[in-house]
Amino acid sequence: MITGKNCIGGQFKADGSVEFRTTDPKRNVPNPTVFVEATKDEIDTAVDLAWEAFKVFRSMPGKQRAAFLNTIADEMLALDQELIDTYMLESGLPEGRAIGERGRTIFQLRSFAELVANDDWRENTFDAAQPDRLPQPKPSLRKTMIPLGPVAVFGASNFPLAYSTAGGDTASALAAGCPVIVKSHPMHAGTNELVASAIVKAANKTGMPKGVFSSINGSVQAGIDLVNHPKVKAVGFTGSIGGGRALFDLAAKREEPIPVFAEMGSINPVIMTASAISKRGSELAKTYAGSITLGTGQFCTNPGLLLTLKSDDAQSFIQELAKETVAIAPQIMLHPNIKKGYISKGDTVTGQEGVKVVATYDGDLDANEAAATIATVSGKAFLDNPKMHQEVFGPFSMVVQCEDEAELLQIIEGLEGQLTGTLIAEKDDTLNLPKIVDALQHRVGRIIYNGVPTGVEVCASMQHGGPYPASTDSRFTAVGVHSIKRWVRPISYQSFPTELLPDHLKK
Amino acid sequence: MITGKNCIGGQFKADGSVEFRTTDPKRNVPNPTVFVEATKDEIDTAVDLAWEAFKVFRSMPGKQRAAFLNTIADEMLALDQELIDTYMLESGLPEGRAIGERGRTIFQLRSFAELVANDDWRENTFDAAQPDRLPQPKPSLRKTMIPLGPVAVFGASNFPLAYSTAGGDTASALAAGCPVIVKSHPMHAGTNELVASAIVKAANKTGMPKGVFSSINGSVQAGIDLVNHPKVKAVGFTGSIGGGRALFDLAAKREEPIPVFAEMGSINPVIMTASAISKRGSELAKTYAGSITLGTGQFCTNPGLLLTLKSDDAQSFIQELAKETVAIAPQIMLHPNIKKGYISKGDTVTGQEGVKVVATYDGDLDANEAAATIATVSGKAFLDNPKMHQEVFGPFSMVVQCEDEAELLQIIEGLEGQLTGTLIAEKDDTLNLPKIVDALQHRVGRIIYNGVPTGVEVCASMQHGGPYPASTDSRFTAVGVHSIKRWVRPISYQSFPTELLPDHLKK
Repeated sequence: MITGKNCIGGQFKADGSVEFRTTDPKRNVPNPTVFVEATKDEIDTAVDLAWEAFKVFRSMPGKQRAAFLNTIADEMLALDQELIDTYMLESGLPEGRAIGERGRTIFQLRSFAELVANDDWRENTFDAAQPDRLPQPKPSLRKTMIPLGPVAVFGASNFPLAYSTAGGDTASALAAGCPVIVKSHPMHAGTNELVASAIVKAANKTGMPKGVFSSINGSVQAGIDLVNHPKVKAVGFTGSIGGGRALFDLAAKREEPIPVFAEMGSINPVIMTASAISKRGSELAKTYAGSITLGTGQFCTNPGLLLTLKSDDAQSFIQELAKETVAIAPQIMLHPNIKKGYISKGDTVTGQEGVKVVATYDGDLDANEAAATIATVSGKAFLDNPKMHQEVFGPFSMVVQCEDEAELLQIIEGLEGQLTGTLIAEKDDTLNLPKIVDALQHRVGRIIYNGVPTGVEVCASMQHGGPYPASTDSRFTAVGVHSIKRWVRPISYQSFPTELLPDHLKK
Repeated sequence: MITGKNCIGGQFKADGSVEFRTTDPKRNVPNPTVFVEATKDEIDTAVDLAWEAFKVFRSMPGKQRAAFLNTIADEMLALDQELIDTYMLESGLPEGRAIGERGRTIFQLRSFAELVANDDWRENTFDAAQPDRLPQPKPSLRKTMIPLGPVAVFGASNFPLAYSTAGGDTASALAAGCPVIVKSHPMHAGTNELVASAIVKAANKTGMPKGVFSSINGSVQAGIDLVNHPKVKAVGFTGSIGGGRALFDLAAKREEPIPVFAEMGSINPVIMTASAISKRGSELAKTYAGSITLGTGQFCTNPGLLLTLKSDDAQSFIQELAKETVAIAPQIMLHPNIKKGYISKGDTVTGQEGVKVVATYDGDLDANEAAATIATVSGKAFLDNPKMHQEVFGPFSMVVQCEDEAELLQIIEGLEGQLTGTLIAEKDDTLNLPKIVDALQHRVGRIIYNGVPTGVEVCASMQHGGPYPASTDSRFTAVGVHSIKRWVRPISYQSFPTELLPDHLKK
């Protein structure tokens, strides 16, 4: 049962008086549960408990943390239909997506459990002593990774499970040995509370210290208090550029600055060569109409920018893309505010000089339904106007028609940092593909050949995070087991006797 | 021959009009060469050339970058006695140290050459495609590391060779494929120019693009211009907390924030147990007198804080340490300003209530010679007064006498972040060593058992960098081959045909 309370180190509490409710975007009405924002005292208590928990949690054997993560997965599954129903009620996303995303969340938790069941992930190295070396003896040195401390996690509006309460940030931080304080996303506070209750059950069952996990409801100020707390040592965030940058700025201004891993906006450029369009334009139009409208375009890897060379084939492709996109029934967006943002940002971009809208749905729309938009513009106009480069979160894509390969390269080199870049080309392409790949790879975190950017595989070789403003720290991934590296730092033990080394270095 | 000019992409130039000279700290007079600060235009040209060079340099085979690094080492050796003499003239450090530090610099260059001669350092991973996976096929993914772009390096006053022009930051950045712009340290602009000329010769001999290296003379504004330049993508710095934090703040405020690796201050706590002091107090006094005065205490790993338990043995140890320290002849400091800082910061710390100075040299001192200071204070007074925690750069150490183990642990847990922590103990010690190690390791980057913190081994298992304010980013090391990780980021290639992969992923 959802109580509307905060979870402070395992205890469900509501000392505060500021209340809020989530929205059912489908019916466009507030949901019944009344949630209570955490007070400053409750936030401080959560962090203090996390700090005390850290002293125990950081030295627990990996197998014990693995058991905790696996039990969180079990307890999430045990929430059964209540979790799925709450997810749908708060996000407007369909049941298939809810079940799929739960599966992804469970898979992530179990992947991290598997990762930390042994200590290979710590990248241990050993330099043997050389007592006879001249001019000076060399001491023995062992290097390993240790956790940073309590982590604050800000969940994503578009992934109420996989990148929220028990999502990738939380799972990787707990795996590393860092206690977690989640600031619940106000759009899905109910989903958050259910998952928080699963984490608390798992913590109790596996003997974790009580401060290992907390979850607080709150507004912007709660987030500020959390990031400014001296005992918080790192931040994970998934969301808008504005939100991520604000947290980054706060963290950089602290007396002790702390790392912020904000996975933010991206327009995910797709380069389609003339050869590819001429050979399989219709197929590409169909595939990309699907990718652009997938999940109402509410994915950070949504292909918001298609780069082509001007030609008659390109013109036909744009018409086909427009037709295929409009043919897909409009879907609900996550929240009235998200719909509002989609409309206003879309209007800003399509209102720029030279931009032509080639497709919008002209049927009736329910309150939070969004019609896909396909627009087009010349390479020159796009180059000259950075306002066209901004992300329109939703089913939106801009097709840029470049004069020639030189202009295409100039556009690629001038792009802001991106999560992904895609190249659609032919084996015997007329364009200089190696040159395009070289330019593109220095603007993105992942580069895809003849595919779509949507669909982020959870595996070791995934890099999800690119140059700013795609992320605040391109040197780390937010997806896959290597995301654990965000929460740890190296430490060396010099001339240490075996009995004083941490257990995993004793072997 | 030293010209006093700036090195702008291989060309020695001096368009500006602001001049300065270095100081001979031994004779306390300015050195003859007149140096010219770079103009804003020269700085912009250096960065623009670095950006152009990056497009070529980043994709060169590792073997070619390795040849460049090895040739820099050769050319530095070819500078022979002129380099050693200039080093001594500008730093006041003795010839043995000059030769030793040149050896360390050469070793670092050759270590990085060896590292990048193949591509193992890129941590390549591969996830094979699973075309038959349900519900969706899995694409193939390959992950590798690519360089960030041009790097600005700010050299250290106390390491005119090993952490300056061709020092660890420059060598690791070039190894990674990042062009480098060095802001020369104004205290040793001559040493910088000689080394810069060696790098330029090596670049020419090995066919590097001309913007691969630049070195500019300048004041604070030149540093600001460099860090604010949109084409500079990372910063390396070794020096004071004030300087490092200022660069960090600048970089964090940029439209595109960039990483700053500042290796800053540290007081390097040493815990000496009662058992160790009672068993080998005299030997420890001798060893630590040597470590505290080594290089006139001008090492970032200087042991500035000794933590003991109050006892008669501890009292005798403090007296012996004082005697041994005073017996070591005072040495010259690097610069009159460094001597001034040593005196004023030392006075601040020793002027705090409860601090007792137990040793200062009372003989005559040449202008820039520094007498070592040993002071002592109670654990309670130290706990209550953070002013005593600040670094006194020079031959200074404070012995804190704790009431009991609980107070000792409280002091350790309350310490600011440190580069190193040392534990001096006995096998059958009366203190709870695992508890002390656990507390200490979460405040430091390297932990030493029964040794001294001075002497930083260059090897893979070295971690040089600790929690803030020891470094701005504790997750990376400034020493050893893993310091290359500061200048790279991961990228994934999804469903890529072999012919479009970078050469090192083709195998």
